[in-house]
Amino acid sequence: MADLKSTFLNVYSVLKKELLEDPAFEWSPDSRDWVERMLDYNVPGGKLNRGLSVIDSYKYLKEGKELTEDEIFLTSALGWCIEWLQAYFLVLDDIMDSSHTRRGQPCWFRLPKVGLIATNDGVLLRNHIPRILKNHFRDKTYYVDLLDLFNEVEFQTASGQMIDLITTLEGEKDLSKYTLSLHRRIVQYKTAYYSFYLPVACALLMAGENLDKHVDVKNILVEMGTYFQVQDDYLDCFGAPETIGKIGTDIEDFKCSWLVVKALEICNEEQKKLLHENYGKADPANVAKVKALYHELNLKGVFADYESKSYEKLISSIEAHPSKAVQAVLKSFLAKIYKRQK
Amino acid sequence: MADLKSTFLNVYSVLKKELLEDPAFEWSPDSRDWVERMLDYNVPGGKLNRGLSVIDSYKYLKEGKELTEDEIFLTSALGWCIEWLQAYFLVLDDIMDSSHTRRGQPCWFRLPKVGLIATNDGVLLRNHIPRILKNHFRDKTYYVDLLDLFNEVEFQTASGQMIDLITTLEGEKDLSKYTLSLHRRIVQYKTAYYSFYLPVACALLMAGENLDKHVDVKNILVEMGTYFQVQDDYLDCFGAPETIGKIGTDIEDFKCSWLVVKALEICNEEQKKLLHENYGKADPANVAKVKALYHELNLKGVFADYESKSYEKLISSIEAHPSKAVQAVLKSFLAKIYKRQK
Repeated sequence: MADLKSTFLNVYSVLKKELLEDPAFEWSPDSRDWVERMLDYNVPGGKLNRGLSVIDSYKYLKEGKELTEDEIFLTSALGWCIEWLQAYFLVLDDIMDSSHTRRGQPCWFRLPKVGLIATNDGVLLRNHIPRILKNHFRDKTYYVDLLDLFNEVEFQTASGQMIDLITTLEGEKDLSKYTLSLHRRIVQYKTAYYSFYLPVACALLMAGENLDKHVDVKNILVEMGTYFQVQDDYLDCFGAPETIGKIGTDIEDFKCSWLVVKALEICNEEQKKLLHENYGKADPANVAKVKALYHELNLKGVFADYESKSYEKLISSIEAHPSKAVQAVLKSFLAKIYKRQK
Repeated sequence: MADLKSTFLNVYSVLKKELLEDPAFEWSPDSRDWVERMLDYNVPGGKLNRGLSVIDSYKYLKEGKELTEDEIFLTSALGWCIEWLQAYFLVLDDIMDSSHTRRGQPCWFRLPKVGLIATNDGVLLRNHIPRILKNHFRDKTYYVDLLDLFNEVEFQTASGQMIDLITTLEGEKDLSKYTLSLHRRIVQYKTAYYSFYLPVACALLMAGENLDKHVDVKNILVEMGTYFQVQDDYLDCFGAPETIGKIGTDIEDFKCSWLVVKALEICNEEQKKLLHENYGKADPANVAKVKALYHELNLKGVFADYESKSYEKLISSIEAHPSKAVQAVLKSFLAKIYKRQK
């Protein structure tokens, strides 16, 4: 595992070097330094789960056959494209959310010399993806499918981000807009496609599969991504800060979290009034009242119930799939997230 | 001409309608309203020169043969992709530059309900381009070349924007970084590729041409785009505000303008000192000193000389091209900008 990760990081260095010598642009030392610093700061510092899972998934699809050097490089390159996509979203999201820290360091746009230049850096990160794809996949039969895939998933993510942004705007006036169906749409588009479907879809394309024939795989992964985000919402409130590595602020930030949506669904009129009066306020006294209500409504139990039902449903969907190799891919994803504490 | 423009605008309505029903996303009335308002505010309100020039160029390549309905639609759709690209850049540039107005109305991000959501709207605009291309060109032999073209040109534009942003940062400490070679690089990458090369490249692809065989056309158009931007820099200072529709602020904004670069090139030590002391200051007294120096150095004459030499050079490059149809495309571009006053 440590070995896989160091191989993966070596591929990062290769891809970075190629980008910094891209012949479509006339580089100067200043511009090369800027892009290199920006990449090192924003791309490789996360958990790399999304990227690494392309290699993992492809291995399952090859049913345990040893991957060639070339296959390891190419699956890693696709994995890095997803990490680049993630970095692009995070750099821009942090600007939009006025965030302060990310992955234990100041957000990129918070650095004194960077500021709003970070917007263009986000754009550059996004533009690196087709450069990487062109450098390494231009002669593959599935090249155009890769481009279409990344384009479609990016479109879905940006659309999910849009509904999140405009409903937070609306929600601040009217909490009753927060419904389970809205929550599912935000989560599905903003997170599930790029975090869960995209890595597997990349592996399927490399394995010569036609994505149109794998709508069921897509649906299962989107379902799994939704479950993952519900866990995230749950941990934001009930997780141990020392384990999840941050102090959740969804209540203060008026987030359309699964918890508030569930609370609104099952509460009585009096409890609803309490929610309307206290949700989305920075004062710890307000936050404490919301948390007390969550306990009163037994959201821990409601979540435990949701979690086990989701798991059973996912397992039976997975086992209905005709290919054992695809089942293995999907089960490995599920095993990584089931009952996670962080 | 008015007719061509109204046909072109009809295609906008068709494309917009398709985007608002894109099956890759689950639309709600709120999200559809948001995107429609955002598109109408940002996409069709410019001069549309870039978009219209795809249709024009394609007509020349067809040597005057009447275009079919289908050809008119497709060239217009490509033209709109360029207008969408432009809208995407402008929405984000205005945020980065803290601009106030654009095309005679407040910048999109300045609207009270929008704010930094505009960042994601910029991303959405960019994402619409591959959706339009997929909807109308997926079955064309040149589909993958179109994707590569838009990707490469966007990368070049973002890279040009980067050197502009980081050298304004550096320039503020050290004006001597502003050289003709830096100016040429900024202009070439930030403006020329997408404004001049891209429309013609789209027309060439639709006409069945291989872009690798048209490097000379690219070079001529990039040269023309550079000349166009030098005019822009000139008009920012010497143009009539009532004609160019704005009051130039390049001197106040410490821009790496062709004028300051030329001034630095030909001035003596004393004049250089004056530039260093007065360039990039908001006070009208400082600006007036810089303008007086520009007159003293006869930059009007230097520009007139540059303009006529550029024209001659471009004409002789164009006439060296083997295809009369391509010559016609290039000459029509040049005729539109030669000695322009706005």
